Amino acid sequence: LAAEGPPVATPAPGIASTFTTLLVSTEDNITTIRLNRPEKKNAITVEMYNELITALEQAGKDESVITVITGSGDFYCSGNDLTNFTKIPEAFIDFPKPLIAVVNGPAVGVSVTLLGLFDIVYATERATFHTPFSQLGQSPEGCSSYTFPKMMGLAKANEMLLFNKKLTATQACAQGLVTEVFPDSSFQSEVATRIKAYAKLPRNSLALSKQLICGMAKERLYAANDQEVERLVDRWQSDECMQAIMSFFQAKAKL
Amino acid sequence: LAAEGPPVATPAPGIASTFTTLLVSTEDNITTIRLNRPEKKNAITVEMYNELITALEQAGKDESVITVITGSGDFYCSGNDLTNFTKIPEAFIDFPKPLIAVVNGPAVGVSVTLLGLFDIVYATERATFHTPFSQLGQSPEGCSSYTFPKMMGLAKANEMLLFNKKLTATQACAQGLVTEVFPDSSFQSEVATRIKAYAKLPRNSLALSKQLICGMAKERLYAANDQEVERLVDRWQSDECMQAIMSFFQAKAKL
Amino acid sequence: LAAEGPPVATPAPGIASTFTTLLVSTEDNITTIRLNRPEKKNAITVEMYNELITALEQAGKDESVITVITGSGDFYCSGNDLTNFTKIPEAFIDFPKPLIAVVNGPAVGVSVTLLGLFDIVYATERATFHTPFSQLGQSPEGCSSYTFPKMMGLAKANEMLLFNKKLTATQACAQGLVTEVFPDSSFQSEVATRIKAYAKLPRNSLALSKQLICGMAKERLYAANDQEVERLVDRWQSDECMQAIMSFFQAKAKL
Repeated sequence: LAAEGPPVATPAPGIASTFTTLLVSTEDNITTIRLNRPEKKNAITVEMYNELITALEQAGKDESVITVITGSGDFYCSGNDLTNFTKIPEAFIDFPKPLIAVVNGPAVGVSVTLLGLFDIVYATERATFHTPFSQLGQSPEGCSSYTFPKMMGLAKANEMLLFNKKLTATQACAQGLVTEVFPDSSFQSEVATRIKAYAKLPRNSLALSKQLICGMAKERLYAANDQEVERLVDRWQSDECMQAIMSFFQAKAKL
Repeated sequence: LAAEGPPVATPAPGIASTFTTLLVSTEDNITTIRLNRPEKKNAITVEMYNELITALEQAGKDESVITVITGSGDFYCSGNDLTNFTKIPEAFIDFPKPLIAVVNGPAVGVSVTLLGLFDIVYATERATFHTPFSQLGQSPEGCSSYTFPKMMGLAKANEMLLFNKKLTATQACAQGLVTEVFPDSSFQSEVATRIKAYAKLPRNSLALSKQLICGMAKERLYAANDQEVERLVDRWQSDECMQAIMSFFQAKAKL
Repeated sequence: LAAEGPPVATPAPGIASTFTTLLVSTEDNITTIRLNRPEKKNAITVEMYNELITALEQAGKDESVITVITGSGDFYCSGNDLTNFTKIPEAFIDFPKPLIAVVNGPAVGVSVTLLGLFDIVYATERATFHTPFSQLGQSPEGCSSYTFPKMMGLAKANEMLLFNKKLTATQACAQGLVTEVFPDSSFQSEVATRIKAYAKLPRNSLALSKQLICGMAKERLYAANDQEVERLVDRWQSDECMQAIMSFFQAKAKL
């Protein structure tokens, strides 16, 4: 990992990461949570969900000013394995301090939809954003049924949420899903410079401002998440969903 | 019509269109509702309003996966004739499946504002978008007082809704009113290709996802429509509105 | 002032401005409120706040169709002096007619956040938009914690509201904060032409349409303002805020 440079440092002495699917470290007032299954493109497992919830709880309480989520290797995250994930969006909705996504490569599924709950989203130009819900017979999650139309309008949101359009980083930036796009060669260093500067700002001012900005939408976000999970659980039990998933993997197997 | 190519087919045998102002057909899981008064630039009459409500009700219940609204000839729609149209936005708010606008030419008035209630809006580069409410002494309708500011922010929405700015297709796309713009020469074929592909996606996944995405805003849309209609009925009875309309048509007559 | 050209005229006879920090005039159905402390970059004082509230009340009731706010000299407004300003956003939320900001130069702090409550925002290319809240240990005001994320999405709003990013006029226009940007050389004349044309539109149609468009968000705007003010009063009493302000001015003094 050392070769990838900032923003993630080797865990500082005394901050032993107790996670098996994540690398968590705190340095310079920045807590970095790194999805760490690079050989599986950081696909989210049940264990990773649970660890991510715990890591967010801990980061919310620790002394850091800024919290960063990123991925190990070439992918940001390839999504999840059809797991029930009611509680994951709530951990993001409730997170009390500035939360920054460092999208170091392609992002798929719930790792894309959850970006709508981050405060800042930095992306390498190599990143892509793909939510193939209907292709797999499913329905939107991660509060995206609320955050995406609010952010980009129905006409743009539905390209992604209904019709499986994969966005480039530049397109995602134009739609408001991404704050800024960087060349891949300088991505890690430019982003690290910014985040380090942010971490020196008055911590209470940042945390209280974030809570003010996000506070008014919280009830709607909880409601959106509840409705999405309910619908998705129904979907998973449907023949249509099962057949869509089988078709998808059969098509893949033929390649 | 044959020369215009897809996405509209000649009515399939057994699906006789019973409308006089619309052409409605279903093929390949796509129901297409075509405003069919090309000699009047598809201006909406009371009859067309009623037929449109009926056609949407039928399309909502039929076996199609995707529903498309488009216009015959060179215009999409030149708006309405000052008719009371309380129920038209409700037919769009309640439509249960993906609804796609194929804006084949200039759009005026309520045909523009209603675009905020579609799931996807494809436009030819030749299309324009014009809502000259204050010029005619009137006020916004079609839920645009709610959907336009939500989609593009007040500063952009008010250029259209207060100050009669006519947008090009490219401008409308930048503001989030239009999903994508196509060259006029390939518009019909490119759009038809996409819609056919969409119609093969799992139907329940699409319909349930659409309901999820649109569900949370429904109450606000009903409220916006009620307020808009109330205001507009007042406007129509005002001297100011009457004089603005007379001035408009007198200026036109001089040309 | 005469050299600056339109849209502001010398006060018409009989409309004597009774303000000491503002120049207010009405001509051609346009009331122009000009922040008039150019030697202080139009920084807002307690007196200016009170006069602005009064001027808006009067403009809301006078015979003008359009109301314009702009600044004297090279700056639009350099923000406020840490004054309690609960009532200023309410004067904007409640303003009953179209309100246009003519941003004639750089804008800072509350003069930027309040732009989210205008109906139209025209800016010279020379304008910049800066809300350095966390740098000064403070938190967002002017309803920006609600209007900015609604307008541009969280990922863009937080660059400004949390992390002090200064936007160019072009960037502000891309984010929906600004309606349109003009070259500095033709700014005043182009804007004056438009506003004069707007002022000839049916006045009731404009006022009632504006109320319709803004009405649904009013309760949320009041709530946002109340929360922002409560938070900000806390901030002002905090050591963190005091130290951030001292650091800021010490750094300035060293230059």
